[in-house]
Amino acid sequence: KNILIVPGDGIGQEVTEVGKNVLVKIAEKFGHEFIYDEALMGHVAIEATGNPLPDETLEKMRASDAILFGAVGHPKYDNDPTAKVRPEQGLLKMRKELGLYANLRPIKLFDELLGASSIKPEILKGSDILFFRELTGDIYFGEKGRKNDNNTAYDIAEYSRYEVERIGRKAFEAARTRNKKLCSVDKANVLETSRLWREVIQALAPEYPDITVEHQFVDSAAMMLIKDPKRFDVVVTANLFGDILTDEASQIAGSMGMLASASVGDSTGVYEPIHGSAHDITGKGIANPLASVLSAALLLDISFGLKEESETIISAVDKLLKDGFRTRDIADATTPAEMILNTQAAG
Amino acid sequence: KNILIVPGDGIGQEVTEVGKNVLVKIAEKFGHEFIYDEALMGHVAIEATGNPLPDETLEKMRASDAILFGAVGHPKYDNDPTAKVRPEQGLLKMRKELGLYANLRPIKLFDELLGASSIKPEILKGSDILFFRELTGDIYFGEKGRKNDNNTAYDIAEYSRYEVERIGRKAFEAARTRNKKLCSVDKANVLETSRLWREVIQALAPEYPDITVEHQFVDSAAMMLIKDPKRFDVVVTANLFGDILTDEASQIAGSMGMLASASVGDSTGVYEPIHGSAHDITGKGIANPLASVLSAALLLDISFGLKEESETIISAVDKLLKDGFRTRDIADATTPAEMILNTQAAG
Ligand SMILES: CC(C)[C@H](C(=O)O)[C@@H](O)C(=O)O
Ligand SMILES: CC(C)[C@H](C(=O)O)[C@@H](O)C(=O)O
Repeated sequence: KNILIVPGDGIGQEVTEVGKNVLVKIAEKFGHEFIYDEALMGHVAIEATGNPLPDETLEKMRASDAILFGAVGHPKYDNDPTAKVRPEQGLLKMRKELGLYANLRPIKLFDELLGASSIKPEILKGSDILFFRELTGDIYFGEKGRKNDNNTAYDIAEYSRYEVERIGRKAFEAARTRNKKLCSVDKANVLETSRLWREVIQALAPEYPDITVEHQFVDSAAMMLIKDPKRFDVVVTANLFGDILTDEASQIAGSMGMLASASVGDSTGVYEPIHGSAHDITGKGIANPLASVLSAALLLDISFGLKEESETIISAVDKLLKDGFRTRDIADATTPAEMILNTQAAG
Repeated sequence: KNILIVPGDGIGQEVTEVGKNVLVKIAEKFGHEFIYDEALMGHVAIEATGNPLPDETLEKMRASDAILFGAVGHPKYDNDPTAKVRPEQGLLKMRKELGLYANLRPIKLFDELLGASSIKPEILKGSDILFFRELTGDIYFGEKGRKNDNNTAYDIAEYSRYEVERIGRKAFEAARTRNKKLCSVDKANVLETSRLWREVIQALAPEYPDITVEHQFVDSAAMMLIKDPKRFDVVVTANLFGDILTDEASQIAGSMGMLASASVGDSTGVYEPIHGSAHDITGKGIANPLASVLSAALLLDISFGLKEESETIISAVDKLLKDGFRTRDIADATTPAEMILNTQAAG
């Protein structure tokens, strides 16, 4: 099996190294042979080649069985709204070119971290949400530009029935293996793309009579997620709403530093932390590598079907937390200084 | 002064009556003469006239000095994505026709409600955020429709420099009267409208050298809002992001039932709770009327410049809460049954 390592920018470099080391250890332990290759993407790729997703990287991606990914981004571009080349273009192009239309973001709280969140423990306890974020459509990929002498900007959001149906089916099927509840989030009282979205999900529902389907407006969902996270099981939503809601939901898991995601479609899969490149903490050795470690676990489970190997990683993370080790983002006032790890040691 | 009362749908009817009564009492107490009129909007207007915003209502609105508004919406339309006439069309048309481009949503926690939120009291204590949500542009008002034989839906998001600048100025000016911090929220790493947004806010900044400006991506802002609400002072953002973030932020105030908003522009202003029509609790007498009461306070302050009258209402709400009275949404396990009010009694 070929695994491509794409650390990207900022703390992506630090945490992906830890994630990769975990893959190496697991392969040893279970007697697998994984072949690793590495490629550039994002700001580092722009610096090296002028292109945030060089052709060589894309070729290696297509040839891989799975990709362990870090993060892309750099403050330099964020503060220059007129920049023509940006790290994120590489990310979006990768998603589109590899057909990664389904982004799975499991939000699960390790018991040990019940106190690390800004939300009350009694509200959180027992929360377990699986997000399906559509990843290759919506306002991310429609035409965008300027008009009226550069004085007006526009972005076009678009969805086809086909696009909604394929992510919808994935979510319904996942709900079958869980608590049989699906919440579809849209803004059907305002957006035409949301009305199509709701039509398609409503049309699929009769094929899954065992699943209880609920439709929520995105504003209300943003509120309910923190008011009562336990009422959610599987959530399916469009690209932009998924981006916002999953970052928000990261607080349910105590820290963004704990959350892994899987982007899958028809061929290879990309596994990555939901956190970004975080240049403010890059190079300090304080980034939480567990999201990358848990991304490695997702990779083994989803792309390779190696359940036991995946569980082994999750148990190891659980044990590490039970033993009291913390990176700063999940430490609290009671964590002894010697239990606060740097990035490498946590891996 | 002419005040138009537009209760709208669902609990809008119940809570707006309470808000109006408060205006009547205050006018008595301070010796003002307000002239009231009433008009239909939303589902009730569709039932009566076929139009969610009848011409007669719009005429009355234009003639008013301020509008006390309830809510519009009905589940019937939400579950029928193909409905051609919808209550929300009336709301959006009102905002556009009256030029209500600035939606102010103050998120302030009454000390007494520190325990009512799902967020930990120590995280919340001292939070005080003023949102400026742009209200007449973005994906709400661009062209939308279907193509490819009804198999593809699209919505166009649009912003002009002029639109961003006028809401931006309002936000900068408000920051001057507060803690001098402005956070502008966008998704400039993906959206062209956001890049224009950021350009315009960056260009305004030198005119307000006393204000510290920060730019945040909407996904990150959705997370930071609940992780550390105290770091925000004034927040300015586009229509759709504002819709989502302010609903989320309602949890900072303990309950959506406590939050008022003001929509202002060049002429009359509209004052309304941020909660919706909530048909699930309509007619039960359990809706929290305080958002409408606080909307009346905002109306007196912003549209009529009656600061003392406005403060009197806010103090009365504070006293009511200090005395232990609660509607269900803000009650907790320790609230004695006789202190749980119905909608009317709370007013
Ligand atoms: C970096 C950015 C373009 C990206 C997105 O919005 O999809 C990120 O926030 C994510 O969630 O993967
Ligand atoms: C009812 C709906 C159209 C409206 C909006 O999205 O603006 C509401 O959510 C609001 O925030 O006033």
